[in-house]
Amino acid sequence: MLADTATIVARLTEFLGPDSVVADPVQMGSYLNEPRKRFHEKAAAVALPRSVAEVQALTRFAFEHGVALIPQGGNTGLVGAQVPLRGDEVIVSLARINALREIDAAAGHMTVEAGMILEEAHRIAEAEGAMFPLWIASQGSARIGGVLSSNAGGVNVLAYGNARELCLGVEAVLADGRLYKGLNALKKDNTGYDLKDLLIGAEGTLGIITAATLKIFPLPAVYETAIVNLASPEAALELFYTMRERAGMRLNAFELVPLIGLDMQMRHGMLDKDPTAGPSPWYALIEISQPKGAKGGLLQAGLEAAFEAQLIDNAVVAESLADRTRMWAFREQMSEVQSREGASIKHDVSVPIAAIPRLIAEGSEAAEALVAGIRAVPFGHMGDGNIHFNFSQPVGADGKTFMAGAQPVHDAVYEVVLRLGGSVSAEHGIGQLKTALLKQVKDPVALEMMRAIKQALDPRGILNPGKMLD
Amino acid sequence: MLADTATIVARLTEFLGPDSVVADPVQMGSYLNEPRKRFHEKAAAVALPRSVAEVQALTRFAFEHGVALIPQGGNTGLVGAQVPLRGDEVIVSLARINALREIDAAAGHMTVEAGMILEEAHRIAEAEGAMFPLWIASQGSARIGGVLSSNAGGVNVLAYGNARELCLGVEAVLADGRLYKGLNALKKDNTGYDLKDLLIGAEGTLGIITAATLKIFPLPAVYETAIVNLASPEAALELFYTMRERAGMRLNAFELVPLIGLDMQMRHGMLDKDPTAGPSPWYALIEISQPKGAKGGLLQAGLEAAFEAQLIDNAVVAESLADRTRMWAFREQMSEVQSREGASIKHDVSVPIAAIPRLIAEGSEAAEALVAGIRAVPFGHMGDGNIHFNFSQPVGADGKTFMAGAQPVHDAVYEVVLRLGGSVSAEHGIGQLKTALLKQVKDPVALEMMRAIKQALDPRGILNPGKMLD
Repeated sequence: MLADTATIVARLTEFLGPDSVVADPVQMGSYLNEPRKRFHEKAAAVALPRSVAEVQALTRFAFEHGVALIPQGGNTGLVGAQVPLRGDEVIVSLARINALREIDAAAGHMTVEAGMILEEAHRIAEAEGAMFPLWIASQGSARIGGVLSSNAGGVNVLAYGNARELCLGVEAVLADGRLYKGLNALKKDNTGYDLKDLLIGAEGTLGIITAATLKIFPLPAVYETAIVNLASPEAALELFYTMRERAGMRLNAFELVPLIGLDMQMRHGMLDKDPTAGPSPWYALIEISQPKGAKGGLLQAGLEAAFEAQLIDNAVVAESLADRTRMWAFREQMSEVQSREGASIKHDVSVPIAAIPRLIAEGSEAAEALVAGIRAVPFGHMGDGNIHFNFSQPVGADGKTFMAGAQPVHDAVYEVVLRLGGSVSAEHGIGQLKTALLKQVKDPVALEMMRAIKQALDPRGILNPGKMLD
Repeated sequence: MLADTATIVARLTEFLGPDSVVADPVQMGSYLNEPRKRFHEKAAAVALPRSVAEVQALTRFAFEHGVALIPQGGNTGLVGAQVPLRGDEVIVSLARINALREIDAAAGHMTVEAGMILEEAHRIAEAEGAMFPLWIASQGSARIGGVLSSNAGGVNVLAYGNARELCLGVEAVLADGRLYKGLNALKKDNTGYDLKDLLIGAEGTLGIITAATLKIFPLPAVYETAIVNLASPEAALELFYTMRERAGMRLNAFELVPLIGLDMQMRHGMLDKDPTAGPSPWYALIEISQPKGAKGGLLQAGLEAAFEAQLIDNAVVAESLADRTRMWAFREQMSEVQSREGASIKHDVSVPIAAIPRLIAEGSEAAEALVAGIRAVPFGHMGDGNIHFNFSQPVGADGKTFMAGAQPVHDAVYEVVLRLGGSVSAEHGIGQLKTALLKQVKDPVALEMMRAIKQALDPRGILNPGKMLD
């Protein structure tokens, strides 16, 4: 029953029209080359359906003939979920299915199709005076279907949650072409199993998300932003607790950056001036948002209390949009500056928040014991317990040699993470990068449940085979 | 392979000891009699395991011999999920598995066993200066396992979400006795399918939840509470939008009550004095909470803006704890006062929030056309789109005759709900009360997915058979 590539291309062309099928390997480039350049497999074809009905038609064909499908959004994923693994897959790009279906800013929801670019969703919400608060570095290319399929996080998770918490309902094409109609704008609906959350974060292995109803929020009227000097991750944790108690769900960011991050950025000329109050082992970027009509000063008051408690001794509060923009640039340029510094061994991990100081201390120590001169650059979403625990190559070392020794560093860091009750993939998912790792570290019963669900919903294994579960 | 009752009781006694098995029908009463007195089936036995290992042992036995198990918490559910349907089931009470496993108030999580009473969880959190914000009428008896299995809501959903959003991870015994170890204190963990949310709200049909890690929050320092007079549900909606824009996630309650609710309570002497600013067709109970260090007056400022916009013309702001308590009593006594008024036909429904005025208008009109003198008493969580759309019998009518005509009223109300994109069970679930209704109204593909998942995780159908899915 397996169809060969020529047959696949011919049948897809029949369903979708010649303008909607890419069969030429060169033209497929932008669908195959992913951001980290780790995966280099070809595809049988790229399909560009223009409607949900076309997705259903091609999925029915794939189901009948055992053709593997890879749903793809903006191709920005970092674990290879959206690119081929075997070489015989058809990439199904959702890019053309990108309409706004409805928006009700006052009621707080909008329904968009999977191919809408995240930044476009931001713009549409803002034009109605509302905010879709999921902000990630790739938002200019990432598409809503991929954002949901990877349960993306970003810098606003502290106040608003991950993609999963920001979605009320989804529509998805199942493995045999049936359409699951789960769109709704309901905050409460206890009529059966939580299929929405099963599809979200499933990396396209259980269904192809075609549309979603997203939560949108009133635009905050005021942002209060600061960078605080901190002696240690322990001090950062204490300050986080203080700010959380005072600001509650108004605290929308608490990001940690080490001194080396500032040094690198200044050295590479990536900041027009130092956004901090001067050298300090650690920095926290803290942001509080306030609605219309609220009195300001919540951040200032919290910082003053922390000064009085001798928890902190120096900080800069943004006094202009330029200040705020520079502070955020400092945080957001952390990935970029590391690539300018040479090779990096990266870990996207989380631990219970109280364990962050131990994670950083023990993880750094373990890596330093393995590679002389390795430079720990742990930074990120401290308030979520999520640290991008990256290591830059020793100054002057050879990048390739450094990367050849990555596995022992991975092993050492993951050992610490698991010992502290953490996760080996906090934000980026499993894809094809971490399937072997998942098998090693995940509760075996959880893996059995996942396999049983995969078998139940995709019995022929045509949806993104080999991703997440091998 | 099916075991008879005597064998079941003998084997359970062997596993658990004689003190942990109730086989006498009279002694089983408190496990069989549920709050609404709708279901009256017997059970083969009640098992009272003292440990997770005992739950696993009895589940393995049940799996081998095809014995149906009904997980039960505080037996407070309103749809019969926790009581027998066939008469041959074993009720597995989690009441004795009720320990606190860990709490870290500063980090914002606590792990408790399924049998802990909700109010005990409140007390434990408060003793550490924190809050577990799930408040429901039955909190003095409801247990955490049942709260999660029914994805309970309550009066704080607006700010904090349903049970699902308040839980970070669960531990559960599966149909064949395997233990799913999904406890964690992580805000971000993208390592596989969302099994936690599948088990939550599954009404014990996919696994027996034995423990959960719950989110806890800093205790608010100040509550600002008011009851506002409103001309109509449309005006209530406008006011909700205004308050939400100004208070954002600080707005933790926006509850709607009609005049008839006040009249009934005053007539039955259930309020020592009128908590409102005087007669008005509708009332909204609004509450904003503020953290330590925040400036007060957010509610007052919002109400002043609404006065200026001529959206409202009268309100009472609570000036003491006694005022606040009376305001909440007014809201919380709505169910009780209706039973004092005679028979009621009830609907626990939700619609997209913008559709609430239409739901109330069209639902009331439809019911009034069916039953002369029927009294619509819609009230509840307006901010969540969730109205308890109840109808009291006509004054002086015979309750039994009134209830005999319930079905056409149900049909009429559900027709309106579904037409408006709503849910026929917003909070209370499906259980055995609404299985037939679910089959009629749910997306058929969603039902097929649910059946496939049920079959995959409980292939012998021993976990709460006939509940949710028939």
